[in-house]
Amino acid sequence: MRISELSRRAGVAVSTVKYYQREGLIPDGERSAPNQVDYDERHVERVRLIRALLETGGLSVSAATEVIRVLDAEDASLAEAFAVAQHAMAVTGLQAPASGARERVERIARARGWAFTADNPGIDAAARALEGLAAIGFDAPETYLAAYADAAAATARVDLDALAELGDPDRVAELMVVGTVLGDPLFAGLRRIAHQDATHRLFPAAGAPAADPQEDS
Amino acid sequence: MRISELSRRAGVAVSTVKYYQREGLIPDGERSAPNQVDYDERHVERVRLIRALLETGGLSVSAATEVIRVLDAEDASLAEAFAVAQHAMAVTGLQAPASGARERVERIARARGWAFTADNPGIDAAARALEGLAAIGFDAPETYLAAYADAAAATARVDLDALAELGDPDRVAELMVVGTVLGDPLFAGLRRIAHQDATHRLFPAAGAPAADPQEDS
Repeated sequence: MRISELSRRAGVAVSTVKYYQREGLIPDGERSAPNQVDYDERHVERVRLIRALLETGGLSVSAATEVIRVLDAEDASLAEAFAVAQHAMAVTGLQAPASGARERVERIARARGWAFTADNPGIDAAARALEGLAAIGFDAPETYLAAYADAAAATARVDLDALAELGDPDRVAELMVVGTVLGDPLFAGLRRIAHQDATHRLFPAAGAPAADPQEDS
Repeated sequence: MRISELSRRAGVAVSTVKYYQREGLIPDGERSAPNQVDYDERHVERVRLIRALLETGGLSVSAATEVIRVLDAEDASLAEAFAVAQHAMAVTGLQAPASGARERVERIARARGWAFTADNPGIDAAARALEGLAAIGFDAPETYLAAYADAAAATARVDLDALAELGDPDRVAELMVVGTVLGDPLFAGLRRIAHQDATHRLFPAAGAPAADPQEDS
């Protein structure tokens, strides 16, 4: 197919496809004539994936480049895939969060018997969120943090179950990276829907589904 | 305090404080002399909050501006706070996700008895994540989505419990918005830590805490 069809099928503008190409995020097409390059299904899937990583996963182009590097590696090691998955979310160049916030996150993780290292980027991410909540005077209670940690453990469990069902090590590496990145917006989206339900129950005026005069007629 | 101390206390560069000011994200300081502006604790907290919303929550400046507008409103209605909280995550101008992906998300929400509206931005966010996973050939099984939805419900529950404990409507609106935004990175961070533990158990070579030769000596 031509680039116009690739663009249509993957649901992004031709200029966006060209941008992904310039950034080295999608493989070259096959030159079938001096003025013609052909693309196939693999390109459609790749463009869809890049779009999801950048727009939905919120990755930077450089983080997406790292993800693609693992996906295209002949024999990506699981250790490498794991490292890329973990660090894709990390915003670099930020000041370290306060040590108290980090300690709180580490304590809640240790209380669950989790084995982790001090350089796990999740510690800083969670600690920074706690600092932001503290800035509006909300000191997250223990039950609050525990519920978040248990929810995180439940999703981590099914993430790993999904990996365990894949035999091919290349596919394991692929899902490890992409599943880690896209699990965040999957969860965040479901949390917004659950929020509307819970808010409506607690504060009927706030989260109410829009009145529909047709509904009961 | 002077802007240099505000910068130091809040942990951001003076140029960043000035950038927040230009964008209208922090209130003006008090002019105490022709060449001197004074800031107080409220400014420190506000700069910390803006940093968390932008850097940790991943909000755009325009989304952060909406959040601040609710926080600074004399009588922000809960309905308004809810709408801002829900839409702060939404990336605008994207093509709609495939209807099949949206239907799958709606089905999993309805199966839990959640009341929600079709314009809930979480539906598109979760549907886009499913599309990205499908682009690597991962068709999320029902148990996988159910675990994510139940985890989302558990966090929504404690989010609303925290709101219910606040009496002051202004504080409810404030926590509704900031808690919604910062709950995402709090969860994502904890999920990364849980991933390291789960990965290490399933694939010892991948998620292993770094060997520490000092550890047993």
